[in-house]
Amino acid sequence: MNLSNLQKRDLNHVWHPCSQMKDYEEFPPIVIKKGEGIYLYDENGKKYMDAVSSWWVNLFGHSNQRISQALSQQAFNLEHVIFANFTHEPAILLAEKLVAYTPKGLNKVFFADNGSSAIEVALKMSFQYHMQKNKPNKKRFLSLTDAYHGETLGALSVGGVGLYNEVFQPLLLNTVRAQGPDCYRCPFNQTPNHCDTPCISFVEEQLEKHAEEITAIIIEPLIQAAAGMKMYPPSYLKRLKELCLQYDVHLIADEVAVGFGRTGTLFACEQAGITPDFMCLSKGLTGGYLPLSVVMTTDNVYEAFYDDYASMKAFLHSHSYTGNPLACSVALEVLNIFEEENIIKENHVKSTYMREKASQEFSDLPYVGEYRQIGMVGAIELVRDKETKEPFPSKERVGYQIYRIALEKGLLLRPLGNVLYFMPPYVIKTEEIDKMIQLASDSIQEYFKNSSVMMRCF
Amino acid sequence: MNLSNLQKRDLNHVWHPCSQMKDYEEFPPIVIKKGEGIYLYDENGKKYMDAVSSWWVNLFGHSNQRISQALSQQAFNLEHVIFANFTHEPAILLAEKLVAYTPKGLNKVFFADNGSSAIEVALKMSFQYHMQKNKPNKKRFLSLTDAYHGETLGALSVGGVGLYNEVFQPLLLNTVRAQGPDCYRCPFNQTPNHCDTPCISFVEEQLEKHAEEITAIIIEPLIQAAAGMKMYPPSYLKRLKELCLQYDVHLIADEVAVGFGRTGTLFACEQAGITPDFMCLSKGLTGGYLPLSVVMTTDNVYEAFYDDYASMKAFLHSHSYTGNPLACSVALEVLNIFEEENIIKENHVKSTYMREKASQEFSDLPYVGEYRQIGMVGAIELVRDKETKEPFPSKERVGYQIYRIALEKGLLLRPLGNVLYFMPPYVIKTEEIDKMIQLASDSIQEYFKNSSVMMRCF
Ligand SMILES: Cc1ncc(COP(=O)(O)O)c(C=O)c1O
Ligand SMILES: Cc1ncc(COP(=O)(O)O)c(C=O)c1O
Repeated sequence: MNLSNLQKRDLNHVWHPCSQMKDYEEFPPIVIKKGEGIYLYDENGKKYMDAVSSWWVNLFGHSNQRISQALSQQAFNLEHVIFANFTHEPAILLAEKLVAYTPKGLNKVFFADNGSSAIEVALKMSFQYHMQKNKPNKKRFLSLTDAYHGETLGALSVGGVGLYNEVFQPLLLNTVRAQGPDCYRCPFNQTPNHCDTPCISFVEEQLEKHAEEITAIIIEPLIQAAAGMKMYPPSYLKRLKELCLQYDVHLIADEVAVGFGRTGTLFACEQAGITPDFMCLSKGLTGGYLPLSVVMTTDNVYEAFYDDYASMKAFLHSHSYTGNPLACSVALEVLNIFEEENIIKENHVKSTYMREKASQEFSDLPYVGEYRQIGMVGAIELVRDKETKEPFPSKERVGYQIYRIALEKGLLLRPLGNVLYFMPPYVIKTEEIDKMIQLASDSIQEYFKNSSVMMRCF
Repeated sequence: MNLSNLQKRDLNHVWHPCSQMKDYEEFPPIVIKKGEGIYLYDENGKKYMDAVSSWWVNLFGHSNQRISQALSQQAFNLEHVIFANFTHEPAILLAEKLVAYTPKGLNKVFFADNGSSAIEVALKMSFQYHMQKNKPNKKRFLSLTDAYHGETLGALSVGGVGLYNEVFQPLLLNTVRAQGPDCYRCPFNQTPNHCDTPCISFVEEQLEKHAEEITAIIIEPLIQAAAGMKMYPPSYLKRLKELCLQYDVHLIADEVAVGFGRTGTLFACEQAGITPDFMCLSKGLTGGYLPLSVVMTTDNVYEAFYDDYASMKAFLHSHSYTGNPLACSVALEVLNIFEEENIIKENHVKSTYMREKASQEFSDLPYVGEYRQIGMVGAIELVRDKETKEPFPSKERVGYQIYRIALEKGLLLRPLGNVLYFMPPYVIKTEEIDKMIQLASDSIQEYFKNSSVMMRCF
């Protein structure tokens, strides 16, 4: 393998996330020198279309002029200040805008640094709330199978993706799990468009059994992203909210991945017309620039902690960089762009276009079980058998092999198991959508053409 | 209370960290407009000397020209890129420098976003390491009383500060705890300078009992910071490292607070001449600019995860913003400043000066039990009785009251219970050290003058 100097130096010392480093022997890390719009440029000048928004964070393109300008200005003025007893304009303005844009009733904003930390904050707040309301039995959380909420031990405890948390089982909380919606392989043989969400009964069963000991249900609204962009209809969320009220359990909406327009509306919960008790936001919050997260919550929750100091009811959670002015001013500029450039409306046009084009392109391809899409998130599920929907065994690494082919062609399309997906920056143009779809299709076909002989031998 | 428009708007929506929000009724948040060097300027133009480096993060002053320049440049070039299978120069160069500067043997760098996440990474890595080495009984961690390692549930589980984790007990891991060093109230009546660390026996006892089930010991080297800047000698660390080897237990050095020169050397572990199995760094890593953290570890640990993909031995931990180029380029510039401006040597002069001045000023003050210092961290422990070292009851909030007086005088001196401390940015000048000490002393004296009558009435 011919490695560049920088590649060698990387491999000497850097341990990459979510990677078997031995894979890098055959497939060394790509050294990116520059980002611009939807493209990333490597050290040889080769460009890659970033169809996954660099793990779903980028909204308005790499090295966006407006955002970089806002960041730079803030850096020379106030880079950071302790956020206990102190505050600053970027945080105040950001909090106001977030309250204005998120579902009605989410009036309070608690800052943290990344998605996982926001989940931890929501779990801890919900738990402490119930302790302070004299519900000492509420010590467990309920989450869905195939959920993903991050990697710190609390967040991992409510995750349901075996790959990430199996080995860590002895360190995790004893979470109650309910089978989540699975529209592609619906156990009730319904379709998302004609569905009265019978699968909500799985949650209801668990609540009937365990509501007394459950403090909150945590979910990814509309799309279980890390599970492979599993999508389900808003009616499910509506029913979930009703159940939460009925059983006196908090609802935590983890919009870390789906927030900021991914599902077509600014927040996914809007589509169900619900206000959760907690909403966690990160990723797109800073348009892909910096780690920052918030937990939005209600006056009701806030007031349960509001008391004389001596009552010891305060929520004592902090991170050193909580409320970081650099990240806040970047997030403010992101919201300005949403407003001034009419992003949600523009995206509607783009997503309609993407849906038509992609459905056309992928539906008839061999091994494509389904092309599905909500808003600006499209997903291709590869299956061994389109009739039975039998999945490829994970050890075959079908998605990974196609990912490598696509990279060769200049398309960054990091898969989730057997699911390839598009979650492009919103600055993508229609002709670039065409190209993205074409390159993905070519990569899939190339893989199956070359592997077909081998596969038959198995 | 006369609130400014921004203060009102803050209180409408912002939930501040580590705060009983009701306290803000009497003591509203200070709105900072600008930072420059060691000073913060509020909306009325009043300036505050930031003697705590905004929760121990700032190194080279607020809105530092060099760092802001580096950040700005990076923003216009490459703000972020997914860090799985991709890399970039700032991360590579940073990793190289960190490997060069940290104790010999820490060759691998794993990135995360904040201190807590770094702790979670280290705990998870140590645990998975032992699973993969066929030590399935090693499921518990050992930590010291009064430890603080962050607030996500894993990090909180190894913390020992009751205030932060008491209410969350039902959500926490069952950590083995050993009584930590307590040099001010030494149970063996030794002094730090003449001490053969008999208190290491507390750790040894726990290891004798539990080593079979313990995967790692986690400690804050030299200073238990959040506990109230409790300081202990390097010899303790040396003994700890020996015990870890003897009992086949990892050593996790949490240098989140003490790293990057705070203790006089670039890293605290240097003073004991030890290489831990994991070293967690954050805070000063970016000079107080941005959330970023790393876990440094050994080839031995790395290799335990290095295998064919199908072995499923990979360490599957990631955060969306892992390896963020903006934060990495800031961290690189911080290390450049250390090199080019000879910071460690300059600090030596400053810390010697601070020690002399502060010892002189505080030692004879009533209610000052001790002035202690390591490197650039000085701490004043207030006690009700200097003879018996009887502490003030926490409900009196002595530290908090003095903090408020000091803020009036333009000194930001956020206390830890009854401990006031100095952890100034390294750009502080000797005359500013004088001023810091004077204002702190004035604040302490003013508080006790006014409260003395009241106290006698109790
Ligand atoms: C739904 C969801 N929640 C939480 C997280 C965790 O966020 P972070 O990676 O910033 O810790 C993710 C990240 O992918 C996510 O998709
Ligand atoms: C020793 C130590 N470890 C970990 C942390 C947690 O870091 P963060 O606040 O960035 O999560 C802190 C923060 O104060 C700390 O002092």
